[in-house]
Amino acid sequence: MNQWHGRRLPGRAPYFHSGCFMALDNRRLAELADHDAFLHRHNGPDADETQGMLEVIGVDSLPSLIEQTIPPDIRLGRELELDAPRSEPEALAYLQRLARQNKVFKTYIGQGYYNTYLPAVIQRNVLENPGWYTAYTPYQPEIAQGRLEGLLNFQQMVMDLTGMELANASLLDEATAAAEAMALCKRANRKAKSNAFFVADDVLPQTLDVLKTRAYYFGFELIVAPAEELSRADVFGALLQYPGESGRVRDLSTLLSQARDANVMTCVAADIMSLVLLKEPGALGADIVVGNSQRFGVPMGYGGPHAAFFATTDKLKRSVPGRIIGVSKDSRGNDALRMAMQTREQHIRREKATSNICTAQALLANIAGFYAVYHGQEGLRTIASRIHRLTTILAEGLRRKGVSLAHESWFDTLRLTGVDAGKIHGRAMTHEINLRYFANGDIGVSLDETTTSADLSILFDVLLGEEHDLSLAALDEEIVARGISGIPDDCQRQSDFLTHPTFRRYRSETEMLRYLKRLENRDLSLTHAMIPLGSCTMKLNATSEMVPVTWPEFAHIHPFVPRDQTVGYQQMIDELSAFLVEITGYEHISMQPNSGAQGEYAGLVAIRRYQDAQGEGHRDICLIPSSAHGTNPASAAMAHMKVVVVECDDDGNIDLDDLHAKAEKYRDTLSAIMLTYPSTHGVFEEGIRKACRLVHDNGGQVYIDGANMNAQVGLSRPGDFGGDISHLNLHKTFCIPHGGGGPGMGPIGVKSHLAPYVSNHVVTPLQGIETQGGAVAATAYGSASILPISWAYIKMMGARGLRKATELAILNANYIAKRLESHYPILYKGTNGTVAHECIIDVRPLKTSSGISEEDIAKRLMDYGFHAPTMSFPVPGTLMVEPTESESRYEIDRFCDAMIAIREEIASVERGDWPADDNPLVRAPHTMADLMDDHWERAYSRELGAFPSKAVKDAKFWPSVNRVDNVYGDRNLICSCPSIDAYRD
Amino acid sequence: MNQWHGRRLPGRAPYFHSGCFMALDNRRLAELADHDAFLHRHNGPDADETQGMLEVIGVDSLPSLIEQTIPPDIRLGRELELDAPRSEPEALAYLQRLARQNKVFKTYIGQGYYNTYLPAVIQRNVLENPGWYTAYTPYQPEIAQGRLEGLLNFQQMVMDLTGMELANASLLDEATAAAEAMALCKRANRKAKSNAFFVADDVLPQTLDVLKTRAYYFGFELIVAPAEELSRADVFGALLQYPGESGRVRDLSTLLSQARDANVMTCVAADIMSLVLLKEPGALGADIVVGNSQRFGVPMGYGGPHAAFFATTDKLKRSVPGRIIGVSKDSRGNDALRMAMQTREQHIRREKATSNICTAQALLANIAGFYAVYHGQEGLRTIASRIHRLTTILAEGLRRKGVSLAHESWFDTLRLTGVDAGKIHGRAMTHEINLRYFANGDIGVSLDETTTSADLSILFDVLLGEEHDLSLAALDEEIVARGISGIPDDCQRQSDFLTHPTFRRYRSETEMLRYLKRLENRDLSLTHAMIPLGSCTMKLNATSEMVPVTWPEFAHIHPFVPRDQTVGYQQMIDELSAFLVEITGYEHISMQPNSGAQGEYAGLVAIRRYQDAQGEGHRDICLIPSSAHGTNPASAAMAHMKVVVVECDDDGNIDLDDLHAKAEKYRDTLSAIMLTYPSTHGVFEEGIRKACRLVHDNGGQVYIDGANMNAQVGLSRPGDFGGDISHLNLHKTFCIPHGGGGPGMGPIGVKSHLAPYVSNHVVTPLQGIETQGGAVAATAYGSASILPISWAYIKMMGARGLRKATELAILNANYIAKRLESHYPILYKGTNGTVAHECIIDVRPLKTSSGISEEDIAKRLMDYGFHAPTMSFPVPGTLMVEPTESESRYEIDRFCDAMIAIREEIASVERGDWPADDNPLVRAPHTMADLMDDHWERAYSRELGAFPSKAVKDAKFWPSVNRVDNVYGDRNLICSCPSIDAYRD
Repeated sequence: MNQWHGRRLPGRAPYFHSGCFMALDNRRLAELADHDAFLHRHNGPDADETQGMLEVIGVDSLPSLIEQTIPPDIRLGRELELDAPRSEPEALAYLQRLARQNKVFKTYIGQGYYNTYLPAVIQRNVLENPGWYTAYTPYQPEIAQGRLEGLLNFQQMVMDLTGMELANASLLDEATAAAEAMALCKRANRKAKSNAFFVADDVLPQTLDVLKTRAYYFGFELIVAPAEELSRADVFGALLQYPGESGRVRDLSTLLSQARDANVMTCVAADIMSLVLLKEPGALGADIVVGNSQRFGVPMGYGGPHAAFFATTDKLKRSVPGRIIGVSKDSRGNDALRMAMQTREQHIRREKATSNICTAQALLANIAGFYAVYHGQEGLRTIASRIHRLTTILAEGLRRKGVSLAHESWFDTLRLTGVDAGKIHGRAMTHEINLRYFANGDIGVSLDETTTSADLSILFDVLLGEEHDLSLAALDEEIVARGISGIPDDCQRQSDFLTHPTFRRYRSETEMLRYLKRLENRDLSLTHAMIPLGSCTMKLNATSEMVPVTWPEFAHIHPFVPRDQTVGYQQMIDELSAFLVEITGYEHISMQPNSGAQGEYAGLVAIRRYQDAQGEGHRDICLIPSSAHGTNPASAAMAHMKVVVVECDDDGNIDLDDLHAKAEKYRDTLSAIMLTYPSTHGVFEEGIRKACRLVHDNGGQVYIDGANMNAQVGLSRPGDFGGDISHLNLHKTFCIPHGGGGPGMGPIGVKSHLAPYVSNHVVTPLQGIETQGGAVAATAYGSASILPISWAYIKMMGARGLRKATELAILNANYIAKRLESHYPILYKGTNGTVAHECIIDVRPLKTSSGISEEDIAKRLMDYGFHAPTMSFPVPGTLMVEPTESESRYEIDRFCDAMIAIREEIASVERGDWPADDNPLVRAPHTMADLMDDHWERAYSRELGAFPSKAVKDAKFWPSVNRVDNVYGDRNLICSCPSIDAYRD
Repeated sequence: MNQWHGRRLPGRAPYFHSGCFMALDNRRLAELADHDAFLHRHNGPDADETQGMLEVIGVDSLPSLIEQTIPPDIRLGRELELDAPRSEPEALAYLQRLARQNKVFKTYIGQGYYNTYLPAVIQRNVLENPGWYTAYTPYQPEIAQGRLEGLLNFQQMVMDLTGMELANASLLDEATAAAEAMALCKRANRKAKSNAFFVADDVLPQTLDVLKTRAYYFGFELIVAPAEELSRADVFGALLQYPGESGRVRDLSTLLSQARDANVMTCVAADIMSLVLLKEPGALGADIVVGNSQRFGVPMGYGGPHAAFFATTDKLKRSVPGRIIGVSKDSRGNDALRMAMQTREQHIRREKATSNICTAQALLANIAGFYAVYHGQEGLRTIASRIHRLTTILAEGLRRKGVSLAHESWFDTLRLTGVDAGKIHGRAMTHEINLRYFANGDIGVSLDETTTSADLSILFDVLLGEEHDLSLAALDEEIVARGISGIPDDCQRQSDFLTHPTFRRYRSETEMLRYLKRLENRDLSLTHAMIPLGSCTMKLNATSEMVPVTWPEFAHIHPFVPRDQTVGYQQMIDELSAFLVEITGYEHISMQPNSGAQGEYAGLVAIRRYQDAQGEGHRDICLIPSSAHGTNPASAAMAHMKVVVVECDDDGNIDLDDLHAKAEKYRDTLSAIMLTYPSTHGVFEEGIRKACRLVHDNGGQVYIDGANMNAQVGLSRPGDFGGDISHLNLHKTFCIPHGGGGPGMGPIGVKSHLAPYVSNHVVTPLQGIETQGGAVAATAYGSASILPISWAYIKMMGARGLRKATELAILNANYIAKRLESHYPILYKGTNGTVAHECIIDVRPLKTSSGISEEDIAKRLMDYGFHAPTMSFPVPGTLMVEPTESESRYEIDRFCDAMIAIREEIASVERGDWPADDNPLVRAPHTMADLMDDHWERAYSRELGAFPSKAVKDAKFWPSVNRVDNVYGDRNLICSCPSIDAYRD
């Protein structure tokens, strides 16, 4: 951080003019710079609004409100020690300087990550468009048909390319997808007695790394051997790589059919681009196919985020992990998309879980799907053929010069053996080229969409020395003349793919642009209205935070480049870690987990490893309060822990007596407790210090779930009041956008005793920390390219800005609770009658009195232009509202007015003014189709139905379908694009 | 262009990985690169669609269609000599290399252009958002309320800051705005006998340059003298600069009131940022205030585009040049915005015109307006005060070190006298800093929003040498203690500004984002549907073309930096010029005119200068066909030419006999003819060569209006068939987006004899060409920062791509003509029954038979989701349709289906099925307000009203107001934001 100060570098101003201020000792001059400017942009309520809201609440000042809300024994009592806030241009100028310390070499490393061209129309209108990146997970399908269609395209693309019958809407990365596949094999293969899983020895090393971690805690034995040996292995499942990590392309069908005959479930990890030309794994007989869709347009981003894919046979459809988009019907009988089989999510499996996956990489899956829409079958064939042809030229030229290749087949990757790796490395560095260097001295070269014949010339120079006399043109002519191919005949793809009209119609940029905008406009995002989702913290994703993500110096870095090419990344990550250490009170941050659930798992694994090292490996009890999010027990189960539930009292607080009893009961086997703070009930529990102490006293570790960290930043620190470890949802508290259902980042903060047990990485080992921990994600820093978002947020807010944000988040929630409390019961408040940063509205009594359910209210809110709050979590039949600090009083009042108006509508039903089955609530949401109906025979008017408030009349957001029937869709599961016939009029 | 080939630069790939192919002599390898990829993205119809459309037209091939359409004697008969097409990544990589040859120094030149911070939320969601930049001029207000509101904000901001009663919606630049003010003074000051105009000698030099050009052809005498001498001058009007170009701030009220007493109309050219702190010119007594709004968030862009402002007293309201947005009512009686007093536009003034302005800088005016919305009064005061305080610190420090300042007052600009300019220049270059260097050795320094105290330290080092011992902090303390200010007391602003709620509510980024999106979603743009505006060529504005515009190396260059800092710009402009020379057949391109109308004026001025130099200065007759666009005669009038109209025959062609007669009649005084080709009737006239020859034979020059160049590129060249000069609308043919009503670029191509007479520039003289011509725009290359758009378009299309685009534009137009001809008469076809790139649909017979007008059809098209074609131009009572090549057959069919359905609706009216005053045509467009009305008592259904087609049901675009009453608004002219009361419920 000491690089911040100092003279402006002379020379060209970068993206923004440098605005770094010298560290003047004159406060007045510093004020001139208006460093607090961003604070006022990020936070919704201004000073006047804040004062007005405090008056409504009946508290005289913001500090008073905080005093009444946060228990005194955990209050931080000082300002965080962070740099002073920086303006947006200042922060971006600094980040630009960091970015320039990354070196963007031409990279041929491959190994699961490739250069790609993101079509500009998709980059600008999806990746850089808040209409796409600020949307939430499509739990409310009526206002999410756009991204649901995008994800259905993704699924169709995966199904077509893999040749499988079903695909989900993405997983976090290829390595964890492979781990999920392993778990699925075990779940689905009930007949298998073996507890062993076969892994071909040409699987990507980072995949194997993650498999090892998972297998260990599942109690599986991993058998790593040449693929040929699968037929001799006694296993429940197997993973093969296609093509192999060294580029070999071979017909897997015999191996796969032998495995099937031996009751071994098979999973193929496939390269998506190669599938354009290679026989699809479904046709080869695979049960599961996983892989990374990154090279379909998604920048490498030093490791992420990208969307992994996961495809299966039809018979596995009810066991598939993650989210699946399916086709159902709405109440008018029209087709409507929604997330299928949501009840399969972690909520119900809890402690029986073998997966804790509860999110996806929606934004990136959408991008990969749009890439396929934009190129279509013909375009992808052109791209894949070009890659393969250039690879073949390379192979042929090398052979001619006497270079040995490890394999006789290839798609895009060659492994050179017996070469002088030192000399080649020297020449490669001169040309600023990255190759893959195997431990045995072999060299790997992977080509991609961006490789040109000019690049090939340079590659020959690098690999052979400049004296070679090869002519690309002559080589190419000969290849064509002799019909040379790296793909064995029996591996050539025979089948068509992407034959649906969607993959044909949008090839011109104009059509593509309109398609993207049409889908965008079907989705409610933060660009339209607040999304008051309790426990999800849908705050501002400021543009200045998002801008660096697509800078080439962050976007175009392969995750496995040498460390000296990522100096800027390292510095940024180190600084962000230091910020988070100060914010949480922990002593080390592990940036690897690429979702909150991954963070939980990584944290529990670290606890287990630590206890193991202490000779306490038998400790396996995990205490979890009954109010916990379902992911907590699922993560515990995956870490091979036994979940013991701790009860809550009537106020929603942990029953400390029960905790006391259980901690003592399991004192010899107690591993950990998982607590959310403030609680999922939205309350700062007074007994938190005591709860932590009870666990510590009985030999356990304290895991604080960071989901509600937005109520703490700058005011209290989990590391101070008893936490040993937490994950942080950077996509909640620290401004990474939700992307319509991913990406996210879930780094964990740990006390120093746990630091040696956090995840490491087999390809790019961490520096500055000694840890033997195996990986939990495919890359060392998870989704590294979105970390600048959180960095910029913290840098621009500074200590006082972050604290102010937390205070305003609490103010906004209390204001809502106050405004609504005379209309709805507010469940759970703290000792002084305040809530934390969210509040729970109890609508169960209304269900009794009127028949109106929380779902009816959620759908009715759409008519008022809002996304529903969180439904039925943590308490069934309730709505949990989290406004965040970014919402202005104007918007919050608009929301409260809507909720109050809805309460009055419910009163009309209670009074019998409207029939129970014909009122604007049960028929919500209202669509254009409703309004155009000439035969409107309802108990209320069109205007009341669709335009119930003035705000809506000024700017109406239309649900694009009527209420979606989830049951119908789950009974009639269709997860592919509508057939061509459906497109006919 | 020879820089294109060659090895990829080793080193970091920039925004896109370099994909430059080596010039291999192997065609097959070149094919591998898929260089034609962009061609298929830009053009709408693919091969299948093309074939299908040809079949409908009844022509066997595209070449046949072209043969039937373009007269053989003008066909080019060869491919243009341009580079082969380049892929999007290739073109961007190359352009990036060019951009990096520009040097982005820290610039303190001032002189009308300043560094500024464009708020990221506005940059991403307006400037980089096709929803904003692809919209057309808001002639159809019902689907343009978003940008109309943005422009109303701009007007209100200008009125508030200038203290004037009225402002227009922007002009092209400050210099031409000043020229418009001069003309308005003459128009409005009928009592004045004098033909002289006073210009204060501290007016910006580039403004004076343009005034000289304009004044010469208006026949005005310019009196340039110190402002004090105004009271002694016998003039009709006067222009003063505020603050003066050297930074002096003085109270102009006495000068202005004296002038008023002497019946002199006064115009003040004001710096918009200074007006935050300075007494507003309206309060000082100015009649007109002009200036540049660039420093309100718009990048300098090496000179443009930015929005000039133009504000007046109320009594001048019906004489204001340019567009004015006004408040009117819609058919439901609700407020609705639209362009006021459109009939004032050039259409009616024609040869009596003293202005040919017919566009604005809508996109940039919107940005400046949003900048004001985002900052509000408080934010602007903070910014302006900081600028002034830092300037005061600088002034005080310099004085203390014995440096003489030219003036005792300042806002942001100091002029240092008696300094060693050579030494200072040397130090400035070391620090990569640009200062203003006056001819007499004085140094000018202008601070701006981006200046920091760190910058100030460096400035002291540069101006004083590093040994100075000044302490900024000490200086600042003393300034505050002693109350030092550069603004004289009587010049301090006393009044509030931006008090409307719009300028208060959107200060948080979340609120701002939602406001921008809300406005965007009210406007129909190319992101929704084709905009088939005849003569406007609304084609794809590809993302890759737009991306470079906001690169810092193009965006952050001051127009008056030394030439060696703009090597990349020069190269790009030279290359673009070379492309346009080849495309047009001319020999030189002048890039200065920043609109089509400016191009016309610049071209006619060049002709007059040339003829003057030949001793033929008396030639002043300009022949113009009756079918010409109104701008043509207006431009001729401004160049002091007499317009003689040439008649057209029944087929819409120029009556060659009439032309012959008039050319001979005026043979001694004939200056020029202005022709549009293909004609405004959308036909390739056979007699074009003869027409040109007739004019040449009689001593005239041939001006070919380039508006319809999109029908010629690659197929014929105006320079080949007789043109001496043309302007090119880069915003039509060459992909610069319309921006919702500007920006544009209107460079002119000339034959070599005219090249010495094109515009030069007084501050940055052209190199490589000798011309004495005075300027027509404020900067040498007009709106330079949007030139990369046209460069990229041509580079990515290549010769065959451009030709193909033209062919497809002609195909699309003929397909529409064919599909519609059995439903509507198609006016004007060529000899073989084909049209050029647009076609005219005659609806006059329907008006007679049904009472349905072209306006009813235009509004009804909105219900079908389309923007109307051009109405009543060139023929009253008709619709002119231009599909461009970028529209797919799908979209064109959707349009034709809508037109045919509308014809059937008209038939229902003709048959009396619907009353003449109650049918979906006369009540169009239909809004949500219509639909929610429970008392629908119309002769047709809601569904037919608002959802007349399946396409609309799938994706409805809603007009946000009902049909707007133009007459009401013009009678009750309100051009400011609604009062606060209007915001109350």
